Amino acid sequence: MTTNAEKSPFADFEELLSLLPHGSEQAVETVRARDAQLTKPAGSLGELEKMVEHLARWQEKGEPTLNNPMVAIFAGNHGVTKQGVSAFPPEVTTQMVANFTNGGAAISQICALNELNLRVFELALELPTEDFTQAAAMDDKTCAATVAYGMEAIAGKPDLLCIGEMGIGNTTSAAAIYAALFGGTGTDWVGRGTGVDDEGLSRKVSAVDRGLALHAEHMKTPFDALARVGGREIAAMAGAIIAARHNKIPVIVDGFVATAAAAVVYAANPMALDHCLFAHQSAEAAHSDVLQKMGKKPLFDLGMRLGEGSGAALAASIVKTALHVHQNMATFEEAAVAGQMKN
Amino acid sequence: MTTNAEKSPFADFEELLSLLPHGSEQAVETVRARDAQLTKPAGSLGELEKMVEHLARWQEKGEPTLNNPMVAIFAGNHGVTKQGVSAFPPEVTTQMVANFTNGGAAISQICALNELNLRVFELALELPTEDFTQAAAMDDKTCAATVAYGMEAIAGKPDLLCIGEMGIGNTTSAAAIYAALFGGTGTDWVGRGTGVDDEGLSRKVSAVDRGLALHAEHMKTPFDALARVGGREIAAMAGAIIAARHNKIPVIVDGFVATAAAAVVYAANPMALDHCLFAHQSAEAAHSDVLQKMGKKPLFDLGMRLGEGSGAALAASIVKTALHVHQNMATFEEAAVAGQMKN
Repeated sequence: MTTNAEKSPFADFEELLSLLPHGSEQAVETVRARDAQLTKPAGSLGELEKMVEHLARWQEKGEPTLNNPMVAIFAGNHGVTKQGVSAFPPEVTTQMVANFTNGGAAISQICALNELNLRVFELALELPTEDFTQAAAMDDKTCAATVAYGMEAIAGKPDLLCIGEMGIGNTTSAAAIYAALFGGTGTDWVGRGTGVDDEGLSRKVSAVDRGLALHAEHMKTPFDALARVGGREIAAMAGAIIAARHNKIPVIVDGFVATAAAAVVYAANPMALDHCLFAHQSAEAAHSDVLQKMGKKPLFDLGMRLGEGSGAALAASIVKTALHVHQNMATFEEAAVAGQMKN
Repeated sequence: MTTNAEKSPFADFEELLSLLPHGSEQAVETVRARDAQLTKPAGSLGELEKMVEHLARWQEKGEPTLNNPMVAIFAGNHGVTKQGVSAFPPEVTTQMVANFTNGGAAISQICALNELNLRVFELALELPTEDFTQAAAMDDKTCAATVAYGMEAIAGKPDLLCIGEMGIGNTTSAAAIYAALFGGTGTDWVGRGTGVDDEGLSRKVSAVDRGLALHAEHMKTPFDALARVGGREIAAMAGAIIAARHNKIPVIVDGFVATAAAAVVYAANPMALDHCLFAHQSAEAAHSDVLQKMGKKPLFDLGMRLGEGSGAALAASIVKTALHVHQNMATFEEAAVAGQMKN
């Protein structure tokens, strides 16, 4: 018999990650059967066809939908900004949250044009995490509560969830998570983020290395690493990814920081990201390394490094096109087009 | 004094290609000045920012527009289909043209969802080109008239022109053009097109090699190659690309076959494609080689190989998002967001 005192605050998530639903291969077969009849050579739409199959598999619907595609931006503040790791002052996190809602941000306009619902989840912006070079960013209970909050964030039942973030300082936090999960030091994982100069880059590397040294003995599990050097928005994104898997919601993960949340989930169970597409190769150099380590291929590389879900939302616009085409094309029979000749 | 008898039917195009307008760097500077004020780190939208600059440069407008984006599909029939080079019978060209107009094709639905105008230009579908393994595909005058027709096709003054094609047998023709322009033989340039099996692939390679041998002495200029082993739709696309340059219309070139038209233009003057974006890396293997030879980087690689302008139209949907974001984002001042800190 175990007592409450012995139970890790992360035990529930670890259990959810050990009991993963697999998606519906029957739904995929339904999509493929229709696809084979559409007026185009088999397979000629490449990844666009795979996107529709992905929706079908994880929605468990032979006729997948995009009636309620949602871009969720999780915003948090970071104590590590005290180490001079960002080109922007920390108050920009709150200012940008207002900008998202007011329609002034890039993500607002990507969503407006492409008819994607945008929701912003503020994570105690008035309470930055601790500076992880000095202390744990969050205690375990706060971290677990934030993961749980992220799980609730999908309550609106989107049929596609794009995961993005905002948080001045959070590329430093993401780099520290990657180092904790995959090994290496600051230089392996730190990039210029929003655009720090050479000195700022050195400060980022140093902050990550000092954080790793300070917390080395206390990062036995992926969730430990999340609490020690992560951020509230990263914790919430991890929760959203887990909840989506259990609620038949396919996910598109944005760039360098959103992928850090995915990496925590992956480190707990490598199959736990099967419902996730990775939107794009971020211009942040180490992003390609982490995607490769997780065996994930990004959909495109347009040199983006903005965060705020911008790459994921752009990917969603492509997925919308892919589904619209699948739903509305004529079959060879309907269009009276001759099919492929038999040899 | 030269007489009419001495003048090549292609002389007018060669003259147009020697007198190329350069685009407006001032318009690009206007775009960059606004871009620097938008609420995002400088450069963080990567290629999306460059797309807007491209529109500005070639529209010669500091505030570029996408009020009339057009997808033009040029359709032609090919005598070389007699050599068994396609997985589909030649009547599919005409059937698919009807399908484009009726809304049943992939391109119809990509355009419908993304509000792109679709125009289909039929090029004497009842008169296939000659089988280029036996004779010149077109005589020079027919070829020149078709290039000229392609130039007229932009009369509707689109502010963005996506160039695509339909023509059973035309990947064989495109492969022959590449070999004629860049060297190599059938094996270097031939792929599976709409999906031929191994025997079909051998027939394609053989057809290209026989065509090259037959016409070797008669392909001194790029336009000669176009006439000898090209196709009507390829000739018309070349004309459209040239006319767009002279009429301040930026272009997006689709995949393997559309790029063959661009390659003819490039071979006449390598700077003549500066107004063209290349949408995507086609799954047709040799497409990457020709893009590399011309120094062009495709915007994305989604494994598409459908033709009919599908890749170019998908790229146009991304360009639309890029411009919408540029036009509608708030500036740092408007949104009261703090800018980058000075060091």
